[in-house]
Amino acid sequence: MTDWNRMTIACFQLGLAEGEFSPLDWWMACRERIDALEPDIQAWECLAPEPVITRYDGGDPYPTLCGVPVGIKDIIDTARLPTTWGTRGYHRVNGSDMDAAVITQLSQLGALLMGKTVSTEYAYFQPSKTRNPRDPSRTPGGSSSGSAAAVAAGMVPVALGTQTVGSIIRPASYCGVVGFKPTHGTLSVTGIKALAPSLDTLGWFTRHMDDTRTLFTTLAGSDPITILERLDGVRVGLCRLPSTPLLSSDATAALESAASKMTSLGAHISSVDLGASFDNLVTHQQNILAYEAVRALASERTHFEASMSPALKGLLDEGQDLSLERYWQSRQAADRARLALSQLAERFDVILAPSAPGVALKGHESTGDPIYSRAWTLLGVPCVNLPLYWTPQGLPVGIQLIADRYQDQRLLSIASALMP
Amino acid sequence: MTDWNRMTIACFQLGLAEGEFSPLDWWMACRERIDALEPDIQAWECLAPEPVITRYDGGDPYPTLCGVPVGIKDIIDTARLPTTWGTRGYHRVNGSDMDAAVITQLSQLGALLMGKTVSTEYAYFQPSKTRNPRDPSRTPGGSSSGSAAAVAAGMVPVALGTQTVGSIIRPASYCGVVGFKPTHGTLSVTGIKALAPSLDTLGWFTRHMDDTRTLFTTLAGSDPITILERLDGVRVGLCRLPSTPLLSSDATAALESAASKMTSLGAHISSVDLGASFDNLVTHQQNILAYEAVRALASERTHFEASMSPALKGLLDEGQDLSLERYWQSRQAADRARLALSQLAERFDVILAPSAPGVALKGHESTGDPIYSRAWTLLGVPCVNLPLYWTPQGLPVGIQLIADRYQDQRLLSIASALMP
Repeated sequence: MTDWNRMTIACFQLGLAEGEFSPLDWWMACRERIDALEPDIQAWECLAPEPVITRYDGGDPYPTLCGVPVGIKDIIDTARLPTTWGTRGYHRVNGSDMDAAVITQLSQLGALLMGKTVSTEYAYFQPSKTRNPRDPSRTPGGSSSGSAAAVAAGMVPVALGTQTVGSIIRPASYCGVVGFKPTHGTLSVTGIKALAPSLDTLGWFTRHMDDTRTLFTTLAGSDPITILERLDGVRVGLCRLPSTPLLSSDATAALESAASKMTSLGAHISSVDLGASFDNLVTHQQNILAYEAVRALASERTHFEASMSPALKGLLDEGQDLSLERYWQSRQAADRARLALSQLAERFDVILAPSAPGVALKGHESTGDPIYSRAWTLLGVPCVNLPLYWTPQGLPVGIQLIADRYQDQRLLSIASALMP
Repeated sequence: MTDWNRMTIACFQLGLAEGEFSPLDWWMACRERIDALEPDIQAWECLAPEPVITRYDGGDPYPTLCGVPVGIKDIIDTARLPTTWGTRGYHRVNGSDMDAAVITQLSQLGALLMGKTVSTEYAYFQPSKTRNPRDPSRTPGGSSSGSAAAVAAGMVPVALGTQTVGSIIRPASYCGVVGFKPTHGTLSVTGIKALAPSLDTLGWFTRHMDDTRTLFTTLAGSDPITILERLDGVRVGLCRLPSTPLLSSDATAALESAASKMTSLGAHISSVDLGASFDNLVTHQQNILAYEAVRALASERTHFEASMSPALKGLLDEGQDLSLERYWQSRQAADRARLALSQLAERFDVILAPSAPGVALKGHESTGDPIYSRAWTLLGVPCVNLPLYWTPQGLPVGIQLIADRYQDQRLLSIASALMP
């Protein structure tokens, strides 16, 4: 019997080519799993009707993502499915008649939309209905709550997410899946609701690094990525930014376990000091977020402010009060820190850092603290969460590997040595 | 009699406060002028119905842009007016039900939409129907063709434009108006059709520098901008980038005339050598444009490719063939050049450069060459076109002042010394 929960894109392609699978098989298997688990997990805002598959006559090879079911975070426009931006209906406009760019790209590659996954309100902090599949009494994290949960629950092998603060890496850590955020500006965000454009980054969740590599090379038009089996000569900077006291013993254990695995594969680990230009990056990230959000959501604020959550209203008020001068100071601080990081990158191939302060929080009043992502998101660098460590209670605690901008392939190459 | 063609926002505000004007007066005057001139100029894609003005009871001051008629480039979403993206109807979807962020901002400040101004196809190079008001046998430039022409013809005091290649500075030069492109990322492009997000910049055209300053401080939330009367101590770098042979004698005369005016006001002019990192910026700009455009317009390409102009199709094909590796090489070259420019900016307050190779071209088969804007757009720096020079035949040839990123206020301050 086919184990759809462990299927990879590459294996499915092979099965298609050999006639073992037909293009709708994976989609049907996912749909069954969703029907079984959705009442508990609530990862979906809406589900797509059964897709119509173009017949393949054997003359052409199947397209790279043929038949791969994909969950779409519900801030991404889809022409044939409604978009609610996590607003639970108070934003009543129906989204665009046009697909977001990435939806068109996925469709051209043969992927199948599974549906729209639950997002927090406008991808900010107001928790959604979604439960953590590893323990439904805990948050899945946010803002890409439904996407992380859907992949963790085996409902889809791939789901798109976005990160403006920590919305891919943190839920990936909490839900125990791979989460990847490429270099800022690499993948098109056209047709995706903007929160803070200089931070907003499109990425995704998968169960396997193999699938993350496939998605990256096909969507970004990159050369194939080498899979490393050993890490001999790889220089790893261990970083606890922004400060150690926040880290739980679980997160510390996850970090140490990853470091020791990397060492055993031949990597050289040393502590990294990020220097003065990294001070206050968390504050600068918040300033940029607030200034840009009140502008990006100017029209939504006009129409729907009364229905907005206090957290979102607070952010927009903060942005309204922030002067251009302070915004630009924060952008200049980010420019300086990017330069400093590039200089540092001459001494390190990747940085190893926490993904979150610890396991997913109990309850559903908060999506958790994005503190370990703020600086990296601000710097626009590629980050990947790897679900390498599980507590004795069976909860995942991820670690994050980070590289300099434009080093995404190298990052994925190194990450693949730790997790196939 | 009120000379509406010379009216500034500040004067109108004064007139409103003193009861000399009512909030709809300027709009009505503009509408009359449009009715008279539009058959020759064809600057408008559509005109707004007469606005409904909220009554002011005298208790509150009038909002900053109260009653100011604004033309809106037709790639900017407007909830109550259709958007055609310069596609002459082949893009049949109707635009968003939501206003672009800048439209909401303008409305909150009291500005009145005059209508949508003609854009070239998706803000790329396919010429539109618009004529140059200074000589209708010539191009107004593009892609913000209608906005530049409408302001030059006195149809509106302000019109929004966008620049991805040279779409504000070049038409401003050809039409003889002020054109301003702020630091990239300063004004929200939410709700504006993306062509190449890392280049796309929102800006505008005005008749007076005074109005450009007002718009900038209100939309960006900046402190007031000092008006300089003299330029004592101001260091100006004279730059003919990318190469002198393209410059017509008219453009050279415009540049020399501006230099001598700046000198007479006390500025110190010297040649600026932009160094090795500026080599090939034009090519890098084109690579980034092509790679991002084929992604940003992925959905449009799927639906409407057959109707697209050969120029646009060519750009998208070029982007399709461009690898991620080449795209990133170009982004890294841009990063290096931005750094080099910042270092250079320690020696210069502003750079003086051509806006275009010469006067507007005869005919309507081309919107002219954006060669003198490509590098500056790539670098994300603020640029202003000043219509300081007119040929003996009465055609304008602008010059461009450029500052380092985040120096917009200083740039506008210096530019104001040359033109009130």
